[in-house]
Amino acid sequence: MSDAPRDAARVIVTGGTFDKRYDAIKGELTFSQTHLPALLEQARVSLPLALDIRLLIDSLQMTDAHRESVLEACREAPERSIVVVHGTDTMVQTARVVGEAHLEKTIVFTGAMVPFSVQGSDAPFNLGFALAAALTLPPNAYVAMNARIFPWDHVEKDRAEGVFKQK
Amino acid sequence: MSDAPRDAARVIVTGGTFDKRYDAIKGELTFSQTHLPALLEQARVSLPLALDIRLLIDSLQMTDAHRESVLEACREAPERSIVVVHGTDTMVQTARVVGEAHLEKTIVFTGAMVPFSVQGSDAPFNLGFALAAALTLPPNAYVAMNARIFPWDHVEKDRAEGVFKQK
Amino acid sequence: MSDAPRDAARVIVTGGTFDKRYDAIKGELTFSQTHLPALLEQARVSLPLALDIRLLIDSLQMTDAHRESVLEACREAPERSIVVVHGTDTMVQTARVVGEAHLEKTIVFTGAMVPFSVQGSDAPFNLGFALAAALTLPPNAYVAMNARIFPWDHVEKDRAEGVFKQK
Amino acid sequence: MSDAPRDAARVIVTGGTFDKRYDAIKGELTFSQTHLPALLEQARVSLPLALDIRLLIDSLQMTDAHRESVLEACREAPERSIVVVHGTDTMVQTARVVGEAHLEKTIVFTGAMVPFSVQGSDAPFNLGFALAAALTLPPNAYVAMNARIFPWDHVEKDRAEGVFKQK
Repeated sequence: MSDAPRDAARVIVTGGTFDKRYDAIKGELTFSQTHLPALLEQARVSLPLALDIRLLIDSLQMTDAHRESVLEACREAPERSIVVVHGTDTMVQTARVVGEAHLEKTIVFTGAMVPFSVQGSDAPFNLGFALAAALTLPPNAYVAMNARIFPWDHVEKDRAEGVFKQK
Repeated sequence: MSDAPRDAARVIVTGGTFDKRYDAIKGELTFSQTHLPALLEQARVSLPLALDIRLLIDSLQMTDAHRESVLEACREAPERSIVVVHGTDTMVQTARVVGEAHLEKTIVFTGAMVPFSVQGSDAPFNLGFALAAALTLPPNAYVAMNARIFPWDHVEKDRAEGVFKQK
Repeated sequence: MSDAPRDAARVIVTGGTFDKRYDAIKGELTFSQTHLPALLEQARVSLPLALDIRLLIDSLQMTDAHRESVLEACREAPERSIVVVHGTDTMVQTARVVGEAHLEKTIVFTGAMVPFSVQGSDAPFNLGFALAAALTLPPNAYVAMNARIFPWDHVEKDRAEGVFKQK
Repeated sequence: MSDAPRDAARVIVTGGTFDKRYDAIKGELTFSQTHLPALLEQARVSLPLALDIRLLIDSLQMTDAHRESVLEACREAPERSIVVVHGTDTMVQTARVVGEAHLEKTIVFTGAMVPFSVQGSDAPFNLGFALAAALTLPPNAYVAMNARIFPWDHVEKDRAEGVFKQK
């Protein structure tokens, strides 16, 4: 088990809707850089927080190798509280890969249905929610969306409604 | 102890910077109505969440009677997970009143340093953070700000820095 | 020539990037309804202003029939000052159709490179700019973008740079 | 008369509600730096535009000496198209000082009822509107607010309604 106290945390960035930006020339939402540093400054975070920008892709593009990379990032992290920012479409699959590894860490997956860069985004709320869950829950992998917390093996995304539900 | 499950929560609104709005005629930030319903919709919350708009005042205006009213709201709530949205200036005092009552509930005080209606607000992050803390921590009263969670009797606001610290 | 005074104007909406919204279920920017009423309220407009929501499409989808419809909307309008909100990709083509009709009206085309619903949009500035141009310039069709005003027959879009230039 | 062409302009900043920012420590709206560079970048302005940050004060604090300074800034400017960003409370007084000087320039005063830094601000629309007016109207001093343009000697602010009206 790690020595890092629960008053520190790590955020692993993988991309997803959370971090999409509007490209005015292309006229579409793409990835250029993560909003996490701006968001954490805005949130006036004083907690020691490490940021690992691992990937910046749509979660539909995630391969097994990408998921292994996320698992490695979790395994190597000295912190016991970890938030993974992830696209919602395959968040459950990656959470399963991490969950089945049974690390002695609290790893909370979250994302956004509306990009941080778009008015009315759920990104800041979701990040705050996932971070508190990562600091307080017992070790396991979880999905935290819609102000609800699900263990990795009891959650699915309802694509028609755009919400996560207990399975 | 209450019968309400931990997959439900209550938000008690008291005002504070969190809920200030710009009054274009007066040219100043005042209170007119709470942003909580808009914020919860934006956050795409599916958790059953009761909203109790108890007060809408600056926390410097809070009297003992106001604090008793907040305590009553906590005591009467059927939910065991409660977030109190409160001005930061006297948040610690109200948390103490609630904490000393030793209710068998997890009651998390939060607020904002920048109003929800102002660009770059910490309000959505803080609300998400406090709500997850209220759903997961053991019964007690806490202050949750700056991505940190403090028991009510070990926290103070550093006014010069605008952050909450362990006492 | 119309009897309507220059202290009234009409805004004809056709869609374009200006009015795209993020669809959280589809995960892309689409059209659902125009932002013009919200934007005009935000701008605290007291000028009598008629709103004609003619189309709500991407300007790459614009057919000759669509352009004729925009021309008809301009011709029928009792106001002599008209703003047409239009996608930037084919704005110049539609401005040409309207310009060649030589209506005795000041018709100013504008749009946005970033949707109104996305942080950092140029939409509010552009609408204000185009509206003042429509109230003050002599009759003709113009394109107003990037804080510059071009007669319809001396303008082209530089797609690589995303700016309009004199031709 | 100046040699600068009408395809260039100058923005003179004096402060006012337009440029107020929320100070999270003081808990109030104050002045720290102007938003004009950010706003002009967001507006994707390609027009040559000089920026003169003359003052950064509430217009209720404006003295005769301040107004003389604004007049001097207008007089010295090589551009013939000038926008003055000004607080709304005494905008009409300063416009009168400038108007009575009968400079051979088009000088348009504007401001905002809601700060640029607050959600739902009229600042970007007003700046775009005033700039187009400055590029197109004959030489004189004007007030441009609420999507209307008033010569300096025929305008007053209706404080109860928060709108400018013809006098």
